[in-house]
Amino acid sequence: MRERGPKLRETLITLAHGAGGKATRMLIEQVFLEAFENPALRPLSDAALLEHDGVRLAFTTDSSVVKPIFFPGGDIGDLAVNGTVNDLAVSGARPLALSAGFVIEEGFPVDDLRRVAASMAAAASRVGVPLATGDTKVVERGKADGLYITTAGVGVMPAGVELGADRVAPGDRLLVSGSIGDHGMAVVVARGELALEADLESDTAPVHELAAALGEGLGGGLRWMRDPTRGGLATALNELAGDAGVAVWLDEEALPVRPVVAGTCEILGIDPLYVASEGRLVAIVAPDAAERALEILRSHPQGADAAVIGEVRDEPEGLVFLDTALGGGRVVDMLVGDPLPRIC
Amino acid sequence: MRERGPKLRETLITLAHGAGGKATRMLIEQVFLEAFENPALRPLSDAALLEHDGVRLAFTTDSSVVKPIFFPGGDIGDLAVNGTVNDLAVSGARPLALSAGFVIEEGFPVDDLRRVAASMAAAASRVGVPLATGDTKVVERGKADGLYITTAGVGVMPAGVELGADRVAPGDRLLVSGSIGDHGMAVVVARGELALEADLESDTAPVHELAAALGEGLGGGLRWMRDPTRGGLATALNELAGDAGVAVWLDEEALPVRPVVAGTCEILGIDPLYVASEGRLVAIVAPDAAERALEILRSHPQGADAAVIGEVRDEPEGLVFLDTALGGGRVVDMLVGDPLPRIC
Repeated sequence: MRERGPKLRETLITLAHGAGGKATRMLIEQVFLEAFENPALRPLSDAALLEHDGVRLAFTTDSSVVKPIFFPGGDIGDLAVNGTVNDLAVSGARPLALSAGFVIEEGFPVDDLRRVAASMAAAASRVGVPLATGDTKVVERGKADGLYITTAGVGVMPAGVELGADRVAPGDRLLVSGSIGDHGMAVVVARGELALEADLESDTAPVHELAAALGEGLGGGLRWMRDPTRGGLATALNELAGDAGVAVWLDEEALPVRPVVAGTCEILGIDPLYVASEGRLVAIVAPDAAERALEILRSHPQGADAAVIGEVRDEPEGLVFLDTALGGGRVVDMLVGDPLPRIC
Repeated sequence: MRERGPKLRETLITLAHGAGGKATRMLIEQVFLEAFENPALRPLSDAALLEHDGVRLAFTTDSSVVKPIFFPGGDIGDLAVNGTVNDLAVSGARPLALSAGFVIEEGFPVDDLRRVAASMAAAASRVGVPLATGDTKVVERGKADGLYITTAGVGVMPAGVELGADRVAPGDRLLVSGSIGDHGMAVVVARGELALEADLESDTAPVHELAAALGEGLGGGLRWMRDPTRGGLATALNELAGDAGVAVWLDEEALPVRPVVAGTCEILGIDPLYVASEGRLVAIVAPDAAERALEILRSHPQGADAAVIGEVRDEPEGLVFLDTALGGGRVVDMLVGDPLPRIC
């Protein structure tokens, strides 16, 4: 179990509490986890594991408040569906059904709602999972920002699949299925608030096929998976390092970052390690499974740019360390503050 | 299958689309159902039925946008938990786990969030169901109204339980577990916008024990259950009448309405038949099971005011008909417009 961090001192919620980084973790641990305390929630993983009559289920939820609702490469609808599918997939589960709760602002165009619904339907159909139940609420003008969608998902854990931070050990290798930061940068630029144009597109996509292929191909050699969304790769790996009590060493030169993403990040002074992807998975695998894992990922169209990007070590325990291209290195902390509000 | 109603003509979403009545049904049928088309969603019941490996699951979701967040008898937290528990319970399912997605407005007091979390925890603990997974998003000031919560729930259907509009037949009896309209009126008065004070309290509560007792006690004699929330008893029964192709005859004199609720409704010109309850269930039972059903409900503290309030007939097909105290009668239509926005 991760050690308690500093105490939550703020009296009012700030945007940083929603950024997925350090403040979010403190809020969740010190407000929700304290109140809701139960073994299913405790691991704070992407999906809770439930068991009934010998059937193992995974259960997860995501609220989507992305701004703008439509952006290059996707919209709030497929983002919501893919996000929930991916939380199930990286937990090792096969998606069984999704739900969707809509909070709509009075005055929202019905045609935009149709467009979002069509995009949710297409995303769900791509995965073969039904949008089985839903709810619709409307709030007055000025009480939302167009449309918020909260999806939840139920999945089935195949027999034998056991993933988790407790299975990660020094020597294990770290892989990513493709370039990082595409989604976050595409959304930020799409807002049009920056005097910046760039040919950026969200990577929003379901990773269920990649996840299933790794599970089938590696068996017990697959230790842990995550989709590096809000807070980016840095935050996902910091949570792993803390939960597993290990160090994660990242090789900067091996990190796949598209030049246009790297360039936009540089202009904005943002580190791509903290920028959300919405169609990538990171995986920790046993040392002797790394080559096979890379083959499996690269043989799939979504994994063409997959790479081994680091390894697990003993020290410095609980931290993520970046080996830089220049031969030096630095600790990569969890996200602090919120440089990119409402990117998912 | 219910016939298609009139075509959705609005180009912008209105508050009526969130009221749970006719406009909501049109929006759901003509936007979401058309896009998402699948057998689990099709019945538009309180919970979708899923099946995996011989295990039957129920799955449901609710977005809560109630204003004010704290009101006499409850708050947005226990309302959200009870609402999802009740959707599972009236489907005949035993709740297994809940999820919660929070959309929080920047500047919301952390202490209020703790209070809501504590109330969710208490409500979940009363039912013995874990809040197993969640998500937290923060939006800028002016982009929400304090706090919105979307809960989802997974439940297990006990073997042998078969409920549905298709099992309802003429001659069946209609029961309600207690007084109607308490929640909606308590919330409206709590807003303080009306020059009105009344000793009103929400009835928010889980009905899982009542539902389970009816299921165990009546077996196949229990046909259909629903919790009459948004849109009230009138809307729930109209949906039943349409789905089952029957008439529902209501006996006005038998309807339990607390005098303070009836009086407040009268002042505001609102029919209590359209006002939400959040801790009541309505049940249709076989003719010879009505007496036993009433006994079961009344033997539970939450069912002290239970009553047989009507019956199912052949005619007028698809309609709800109210036998008034004066010996006359009138058709009770579905809710049109939204006299009480954001009561749940």
